[in-house]
Amino acid sequence: MTDTDALNRVLGRIDAGLDGALDRLMALLRIPSISTDPANAGDCVRAAEHLVADLASFGVAARVFPTTGHPMVVGHLDGPPGAPHLLFYGHYDVQPVDPLDLWHHDPFDPRIEETPAGKVIRGRGANDDKGQLMTFVEAVRAWIAEHGAPPVRLTFLFEGEEESGSPSLVPFLREHAAILKADLALVCDTSRFDEDTPAITTRLRGLLGEEVTLHAASRDLHSGGYGGPAANPLRVLARVLAGLHDEAGRVTLPGFYDGVSDLPPELAAQWQGLGFDAAEFLGRVGLSHPAGEAGRSALEMLWARPTCEINGIRGGYTGAGFKTVLPAEAHAKVSFRLVGRQDPLAIREAFRAHVAGALPPDVRATFEGHGASPAVEMETGHPAFEAARAALSDEWPRPAAFIGAGGSIPIAGWFKEHLGLDAMLIGFGRDDDQLHSPNEKYDLKSFHKGMRSWARVLAAIAG
Amino acid sequence: MTDTDALNRVLGRIDAGLDGALDRLMALLRIPSISTDPANAGDCVRAAEHLVADLASFGVAARVFPTTGHPMVVGHLDGPPGAPHLLFYGHYDVQPVDPLDLWHHDPFDPRIEETPAGKVIRGRGANDDKGQLMTFVEAVRAWIAEHGAPPVRLTFLFEGEEESGSPSLVPFLREHAAILKADLALVCDTSRFDEDTPAITTRLRGLLGEEVTLHAASRDLHSGGYGGPAANPLRVLARVLAGLHDEAGRVTLPGFYDGVSDLPPELAAQWQGLGFDAAEFLGRVGLSHPAGEAGRSALEMLWARPTCEINGIRGGYTGAGFKTVLPAEAHAKVSFRLVGRQDPLAIREAFRAHVAGALPPDVRATFEGHGASPAVEMETGHPAFEAARAALSDEWPRPAAFIGAGGSIPIAGWFKEHLGLDAMLIGFGRDDDQLHSPNEKYDLKSFHKGMRSWARVLAAIAG
Repeated sequence: MTDTDALNRVLGRIDAGLDGALDRLMALLRIPSISTDPANAGDCVRAAEHLVADLASFGVAARVFPTTGHPMVVGHLDGPPGAPHLLFYGHYDVQPVDPLDLWHHDPFDPRIEETPAGKVIRGRGANDDKGQLMTFVEAVRAWIAEHGAPPVRLTFLFEGEEESGSPSLVPFLREHAAILKADLALVCDTSRFDEDTPAITTRLRGLLGEEVTLHAASRDLHSGGYGGPAANPLRVLARVLAGLHDEAGRVTLPGFYDGVSDLPPELAAQWQGLGFDAAEFLGRVGLSHPAGEAGRSALEMLWARPTCEINGIRGGYTGAGFKTVLPAEAHAKVSFRLVGRQDPLAIREAFRAHVAGALPPDVRATFEGHGASPAVEMETGHPAFEAARAALSDEWPRPAAFIGAGGSIPIAGWFKEHLGLDAMLIGFGRDDDQLHSPNEKYDLKSFHKGMRSWARVLAAIAG
Repeated sequence: MTDTDALNRVLGRIDAGLDGALDRLMALLRIPSISTDPANAGDCVRAAEHLVADLASFGVAARVFPTTGHPMVVGHLDGPPGAPHLLFYGHYDVQPVDPLDLWHHDPFDPRIEETPAGKVIRGRGANDDKGQLMTFVEAVRAWIAEHGAPPVRLTFLFEGEEESGSPSLVPFLREHAAILKADLALVCDTSRFDEDTPAITTRLRGLLGEEVTLHAASRDLHSGGYGGPAANPLRVLARVLAGLHDEAGRVTLPGFYDGVSDLPPELAAQWQGLGFDAAEFLGRVGLSHPAGEAGRSALEMLWARPTCEINGIRGGYTGAGFKTVLPAEAHAKVSFRLVGRQDPLAIREAFRAHVAGALPPDVRATFEGHGASPAVEMETGHPAFEAARAALSDEWPRPAAFIGAGGSIPIAGWFKEHLGLDAMLIGFGRDDDQLHSPNEKYDLKSFHKGMRSWARVLAAIAG
């Protein structure tokens, strides 16, 4: 039997077994495993136990590991000796469901619905992350059913706190590094690039958050009695913040662009080939012109360029009507999305120095730091990345691409830092899946072709 | 009898009658005429009727005029034929008394208290404005008691809504202009410059308020998913606001300083002579350096220079912790203190043009205007001003000065606009009288020398 024959038989089994796979997904979706609500703690345990039983049903030695929060599930499955060892990660917890009255039906009574665009699975967690997680589980189940074993060695890791910041995960990775050893991590919690184009997310921007408070007078002052000679911290704040960018939209902090490289030409070509429609992307949120750095494409700005953004300003009187106050304090939250080898702590220093250098007499600044995570860029030179890209390209109408993500996915950095593993982020969701919102859904096509995709990726990585 | 003898006899009568004057003030202070609380509407009527009776007791033909709010009191008193006709204004309503538990005693059970700095009258309204109003009433009473008539013709106008924005006053001035005719208005609702220096407030800054809201995307965006190509209205707002001043602290709006004149030398000399201690003034509120326009004294900035101040900024996430949002909107309140002949409406136009000119594509601005009152500068060339200044200088240790007020006192502008009258603002309060706060007081000295001051001013204006 050729490798191609072996894979085709797995794909055929997935196609034939779609209804069974759907039943199993529905059973998982019925468990209201909302991690942020203490009232659902028991449901989180139930979901973990449900997954252990499901993994066991096709031969995975799995068990629940208690944490100080919701439990972890870890399972192992041997494969051919010497085959690559993959650590698959997903999360069984889901977002809260408020406001309930906006749902078409009970979020934990999932249904298959016909829509103009095809069948969708509707319910909380249909995509995020139960649906996506199950694409992998089902692909492995099909491999075993067809061939008695997967083509690779596997470790499964499911957590139940992703929607509440994963407080137990890093301690767990540290404590249990020995049972989590692998060659590469797989994560199924992202989206396709577009309807026809699968994607492997290989670049995640880092994040640095800074809160700054400027303090002037010992109390709020009346602008009639003090306006003129009294320092106004809002005026100083406006000047400090306006000075963070130059006319070309570049960040002015000294050394800010240290560690930022231009895109490798082959990646630039891949992105070019994606045909990203910036006008459509911006048009969806009521915008029409790419802002940001002059001379950079919108996609490059999102995936490969750092930013400095003001996320909030508060100061003085902000209620209805008018109050001519000179406030004692003014407050801003500023965050930086980081790329390449930018050093978050050096940028924090540069930001604080910029503020300090702009203060007139009588105005002082205090700071609070929030997070300081560098960007993550996967070693796409690892042969598994190109193998997976080819496998995904075989399943979908258009070739797969290595893409970036404008946001941060902390798990990828943690696998790198605590287990030394690159993570391959492959997911099958669509932008309109309404994650975290009422009426979350997952297209039946996403689920079906997702299972087939993983079957192919496992074969490709096995070589 | 010389004029000096005539005045001295009035002053002697005031000194001898201090206890009686205090008794009458106490009676007025016991009426809880809080204008903002509907529960005290009857007390406001009582206070108005009390004043009518008191005026009648020394021959003033006075009566209560109902309004849609609290009533007005108007009274007339003839003087020597051809003598100047003065319109005296005061208000009988007082501020609320919350928080009650911070008062030393019932705010409407006024007491004379001994303090290290001398005797004080403590109770709500002791200064603002019942105590100040009664300095004038008592001075007139003493003139009549001593000479049978005041040396001038007089109209009294007391309102009961000053602490709630005087909604009935302008309509009343318009409707009753005929009975409010005079040559000059007198207002007793301000303070001395300092302990030893009486003052006539002749310059009041105007006020223009502007609210601006910048709108960008149709909803709040996540800075991971959109940071870079999406316009951030907070960033635009910071730039707009930072551009309102140049490095020297001057306002950059075109035409902003049109109508702003340098101080007349004689006024500059008077102010110089006041020995204003900017360090002490700023030190009381925790500041040490005069901010504002380079090369201007703190007093000049407060009384004779216009300002542009940011009174409030709101946008994005401003709660505890961090949220990497690119807000759909950003909002600021900006006000301008105006002097001389600055035109509020022209400045509003210039401000809005400044904002509009700084907007990148995809960001639009909406505006809401709040108030637009020009500065008021009294015609101090009117002989009554110099006469009053000399009279006050005779009563107090240091010469009286024509001073400015950084804030706005709307009544002065209204007398000018609706009755064509300059207003002479003379008051005897101190900065520490705790107006609008618990334990409001009025020094016995302020009350006593205030009565004597008015007796002198009336004589001086009568010439």
